[in-house]
Amino acid sequence: MQIGEFEIKARDGAARSGALATAHGVFETPAFMPVGTQGTVKGVTPEQLREVGAQIILANTYHLHLRPGAELVRELGGLHKFMAWDGPILSDSGGYQVFSLAALRKVSDEEVVFQSHIDGASVSLSPERAIAIQEDLGVDIMMVLDECLKFGVDEARAAQSWQRSLNWAKRCKAARSKAQALLFGIVQGAFFEGLRLRSCDELIEVGFDGYAIGGLSVGEPAELRERMTAVCTGRLPADKVRYLMGVGTPADIVQAVCAGVDMFDCVIPTRSARFGRLYSGTAHINIRNQEFRRDEQPVDAECDCYTCRNFSRAYLAHLVHAKEVLAVTLASIHNLHYYQRLMAEIRCAIAAGRMEEMREKFAA
Amino acid sequence: MQIGEFEIKARDGAARSGALATAHGVFETPAFMPVGTQGTVKGVTPEQLREVGAQIILANTYHLHLRPGAELVRELGGLHKFMAWDGPILSDSGGYQVFSLAALRKVSDEEVVFQSHIDGASVSLSPERAIAIQEDLGVDIMMVLDECLKFGVDEARAAQSWQRSLNWAKRCKAARSKAQALLFGIVQGAFFEGLRLRSCDELIEVGFDGYAIGGLSVGEPAELRERMTAVCTGRLPADKVRYLMGVGTPADIVQAVCAGVDMFDCVIPTRSARFGRLYSGTAHINIRNQEFRRDEQPVDAECDCYTCRNFSRAYLAHLVHAKEVLAVTLASIHNLHYYQRLMAEIRCAIAAGRMEEMREKFAA
Repeated sequence: MQIGEFEIKARDGAARSGALATAHGVFETPAFMPVGTQGTVKGVTPEQLREVGAQIILANTYHLHLRPGAELVRELGGLHKFMAWDGPILSDSGGYQVFSLAALRKVSDEEVVFQSHIDGASVSLSPERAIAIQEDLGVDIMMVLDECLKFGVDEARAAQSWQRSLNWAKRCKAARSKAQALLFGIVQGAFFEGLRLRSCDELIEVGFDGYAIGGLSVGEPAELRERMTAVCTGRLPADKVRYLMGVGTPADIVQAVCAGVDMFDCVIPTRSARFGRLYSGTAHINIRNQEFRRDEQPVDAECDCYTCRNFSRAYLAHLVHAKEVLAVTLASIHNLHYYQRLMAEIRCAIAAGRMEEMREKFAA
Repeated sequence: MQIGEFEIKARDGAARSGALATAHGVFETPAFMPVGTQGTVKGVTPEQLREVGAQIILANTYHLHLRPGAELVRELGGLHKFMAWDGPILSDSGGYQVFSLAALRKVSDEEVVFQSHIDGASVSLSPERAIAIQEDLGVDIMMVLDECLKFGVDEARAAQSWQRSLNWAKRCKAARSKAQALLFGIVQGAFFEGLRLRSCDELIEVGFDGYAIGGLSVGEPAELRERMTAVCTGRLPADKVRYLMGVGTPADIVQAVCAGVDMFDCVIPTRSARFGRLYSGTAHINIRNQEFRRDEQPVDAECDCYTCRNFSRAYLAHLVHAKEVLAVTLASIHNLHYYQRLMAEIRCAIAAGRMEEMREKFAA
């Protein structure tokens, strides 16, 4: 396959399974990308990440730009070499973090200026700078810079922001200097169907290697997110990959795949692991609960991850109570493996025409 | 080899290299045991522990008895299964921690009663209880309960304590119910040569599977520790394994091997890793230092551990500054591997008659 080629191998209703080729190899879709915020997926080595079945990971431009700095990463041979991950990497543009983490933001049509959450330094991010940073990191898939809105803004504010994000997307495309790094546009438009549809049309007109759906998972009801997702997937081109940013729970993912989404990222598996929430079946257990202190079963009897093959719930509970760092590692391995196994099951279900069955199982 | 058999394969002066057989397999000597205080060697999986070359690990009776409890570990199938380590495990008797960590100790000839450092509960430990706990854990090598003294006690106090420890050692041997778990005596006598020699003689008279040298590494000058070690190794039987408890730095270990010691344990490699001190050559670097932030070299160019094969000093420095848990894992893998490689080099040096050369290199 050529870099950027997206091959759809099977369909089941709106759901599709296939593969996308990048400069660091092909990954299967629907795909879940573990989040490597600061150049590491928290708690696991790249070797363990491979073992849990991850094929592509996400890196946060905002965090890496502030520390250790994208130029340093470039000087050291790029992010793949820096973090010893030789598979595909997608980077966000930094926009989401600028609008959620940084203080004292000043947004203009030209750029956004913000204070670093680490040392208070003033940092500016423009579409051109966002691309330069992502090219310095040397990732396989770059995202355009976009403005991210809180849930509840009115249509006038959403329309203004939408226009700004569209202009930024065009400037990102113009700023791109390397063909081997794919560039995805991001559909915005808050929760206004008309804006969402126009956003799709305008981005398609500009032309991107793939299309992300942004601005969701910001506190809205699930039903509204699902409707907005379907509005977008219904309009985006069938032959391009679709990425629903920041989603979600296993049930959210299954539902979105049914709506035609191909890629996902979320901190849930690793963050939940750090809080002792471990997936089991279609639900999760909280390993801190007293009941698990004497439980000799693995976290999930169906799971064949390193953690479940070797350790009991009682041992994991012990590590958590004893505040041992291995608790984070073993829990993260399990949850990441759970998500990757979920994606493999989804791909099989699409090939077998059983996605509706799978959706019902997770909706239950 | 039969359980308990100690085979000496090569000698170089007082140094010996060989192997000791346990119920969970044979390990080579001189051996370094990583410390698994709470049923885990901090920061690494058992798989990573194998990869760094560890052949035997140490478990802390005191910690495991307080949490999760030795009876629970027994019910769950023993410590090997609990922590998924199928190689040999040696447990200390808990004495050292009782005398260093616990509050409100009350020591009598019968037992020691102390307050748990976790929840303040009153706990008693007798020689019989120490053996019962270690048998519950199901370890391969048990240690007798002994009284541990601070540096600087006078000879009268040392003699009284020595007598108590000897009686406890006899009671431990009598309390032992399973032949497959080896039992080591512990030489005491503070820094009084006469007491040390009498301790050796009395313990040999009782008869143990191996002999440990206790009560050192408590703040004394290195020269004094070395002299006391040599006094003991000179008196202990040549055909039994010798274990210098709680030692030490690479230089300390090389020196003690030259004096005839076969086994070591120490928290230095894992504790140093957590503080960013990483071994390189015969010294160490502090990865927190500014100079490493742009350093593309591995921690140690000679090292073939997972960390050095895959990551730069700059990446490790980044992880430390970003407070990522992977920093602990990668640093621990490196330091543990460094120690295991040191032991392998020592065994080769003994076979080649080059221990004096190695001692000089590390003394420099």
